[in-house]
Amino acid sequence: MTDQLDLTVSGPDLTEALVNLQSVSGTEEKLADTIETALAAYPHLKVFRHGNTVVARTDIGRDERIVVAGHIDTVPVNDNLPARRADGLIHGLGACDMKGGLAVGLRLAATLPEPNRDVTYVFYDCEEVEAERNGLFKLTRSNPELLEGVFAVVMEPSNAVVEAGCQGTMRVEVTTRGERAHSARSWMGVNAIHAAGEILARLAAYEPRRVPIDGLEYREGLNAVGIHGGVAGNVVPDVCTVEVNYRFAPSRSEAEAEAHLREVFDGFDVVVTDSAPGGLPGLERPAAAAFLQVVGGDPKPKFGWTDVARFSMLGVPAVNYGPGDPLYAHKQDEFVPEAEIEQCEQRLRAWLTA
Amino acid sequence: MTDQLDLTVSGPDLTEALVNLQSVSGTEEKLADTIETALAAYPHLKVFRHGNTVVARTDIGRDERIVVAGHIDTVPVNDNLPARRADGLIHGLGACDMKGGLAVGLRLAATLPEPNRDVTYVFYDCEEVEAERNGLFKLTRSNPELLEGVFAVVMEPSNAVVEAGCQGTMRVEVTTRGERAHSARSWMGVNAIHAAGEILARLAAYEPRRVPIDGLEYREGLNAVGIHGGVAGNVVPDVCTVEVNYRFAPSRSEAEAEAHLREVFDGFDVVVTDSAPGGLPGLERPAAAAFLQVVGGDPKPKFGWTDVARFSMLGVPAVNYGPGDPLYAHKQDEFVPEAEIEQCEQRLRAWLTA
Repeated sequence: MTDQLDLTVSGPDLTEALVNLQSVSGTEEKLADTIETALAAYPHLKVFRHGNTVVARTDIGRDERIVVAGHIDTVPVNDNLPARRADGLIHGLGACDMKGGLAVGLRLAATLPEPNRDVTYVFYDCEEVEAERNGLFKLTRSNPELLEGVFAVVMEPSNAVVEAGCQGTMRVEVTTRGERAHSARSWMGVNAIHAAGEILARLAAYEPRRVPIDGLEYREGLNAVGIHGGVAGNVVPDVCTVEVNYRFAPSRSEAEAEAHLREVFDGFDVVVTDSAPGGLPGLERPAAAAFLQVVGGDPKPKFGWTDVARFSMLGVPAVNYGPGDPLYAHKQDEFVPEAEIEQCEQRLRAWLTA
Repeated sequence: MTDQLDLTVSGPDLTEALVNLQSVSGTEEKLADTIETALAAYPHLKVFRHGNTVVARTDIGRDERIVVAGHIDTVPVNDNLPARRADGLIHGLGACDMKGGLAVGLRLAATLPEPNRDVTYVFYDCEEVEAERNGLFKLTRSNPELLEGVFAVVMEPSNAVVEAGCQGTMRVEVTTRGERAHSARSWMGVNAIHAAGEILARLAAYEPRRVPIDGLEYREGLNAVGIHGGVAGNVVPDVCTVEVNYRFAPSRSEAEAEAHLREVFDGFDVVVTDSAPGGLPGLERPAAAAFLQVVGGDPKPKFGWTDVARFSMLGVPAVNYGPGDPLYAHKQDEFVPEAEIEQCEQRLRAWLTA
């Protein structure tokens, strides 16, 4: 039996109801059913279902189309259900990340039959788990046409402030090689861990760039996120590997990032193990400019990698904009302020009806 | 049923027989029984049994007592049994480490009823496994009086050349601490792995001492033998630990070694995790000088930690002296030259009868 979801209640009330519809990653089917049923009741929406991702579109022939997206899953339950409201805050699993933003998106979908731009709403599953399961990722493969638009808003928590674009990320393994020997006769060997000192020295001395794009300042970072070496307590080790994570401004391509790392670690063995491009903020586009004007405030650069980048990869500039403080995401005591839910809905509504 | 061991055959023949009496660590009981039975047949020996360790002593009132020791166990079988003889070499499990030396010790015990010094022969188990199981170690705890003497010869393979004393060993963990942060916002944290670069730089720049003692040159060594740090691929790590092994000349005490390491790693958190003192060569003692004179050749310093140090801890200077190349110990194709077995027996016999 499918739960009923009343999309005409207030954003905070809807958020509370959504928190109570448990949807840990991998178990979103029931919530997806409920959302699909609720949206299908509105004749101004065309509703599509792909796995546990629900897409709803207006199709009234506007010149432009924009996308509003949010994930429906949460991290695992942590003794933080059901929802609890107090002092203008909604507490409970997923309240912050991102049932509050989801409520805003569902409310807009239900109540804006004639937006000034056609809107595609995407409510997708499995954002909190590995990338291959991500519903938005799957849609970029199976039905990229459903994600077309001039601009996208991903409603991740951002304190109701626009966070634009996102930085790229690349992981490399930088390896030194030596020669094993018994540590009692260490002069017979070459210590690979000692040789890794130079890698760490370069990392410590590295000055990351600060890159201005569209008025935003992206701060890069180059960090060892892991190191391992050693054979046994009495052996001079022959291999040491430093795992390095490079976060780079979205104006730099993956190829450029790799070339840069090979230059930084010149003389060492460098292997790329993981990589994802950044997403340009695209704030110069008319739809984005109009959005910023209505939303107000100073947009901030997004440093972490988010699904914003998936839209960028499809050529759709995107921003994060949603209620809730991202620092509380995934925490047991996560919460979302009711006022931010109302504010986000109000401003998006103003943008889509101006 | 106990195998019979004829101690009157030649050293090489006895070695071959001993190789074929399989005695992987932990399964030495049968070989210990066989040895005990064989030695008990000689009225000039007093035989003691402790677990799978057999001690046999002459007790003819000589002014001095020396100790000849060897372990009876081997590393695991590696498709290298039974023994095979070819071109003057005996191949097979334990041939080198140390059934050849064991044959020499057993032959001396059986055939020297009136040595010029009283002799304690110690044939012990579990040398190839963790220290707490080591039969000699157990004897130092339960019956140290059985190990008394002015000098000890441990018949580990040493190419039939005297290796004197042994270096001490100490392991420390040198740790850096930082502050975790998401690697996308790395400026919010402090990278503990980067901070470890200084530790590795000090290790790379370190110049180990060469310490002359009793005409031998001990070469010290200071090496990272392990390093680990890292929380996740997207986290600036808050801890990095370098495991360091210091091998130090036997003239340096453990306390001095620790003080030295604390000086080398001044400013870092240093924790001692493991330590064993070295053993002085003691070549100035009359029994040792007489031994060297008969054995001939240039004694070499022993760099690795061996059971020689256990005697040193009891105040008994000790050397390694036995047939076989230690570089072949624990190898599938280990072997011992028949000539070295004969030579070791001959020279020890000369020393004990001169």
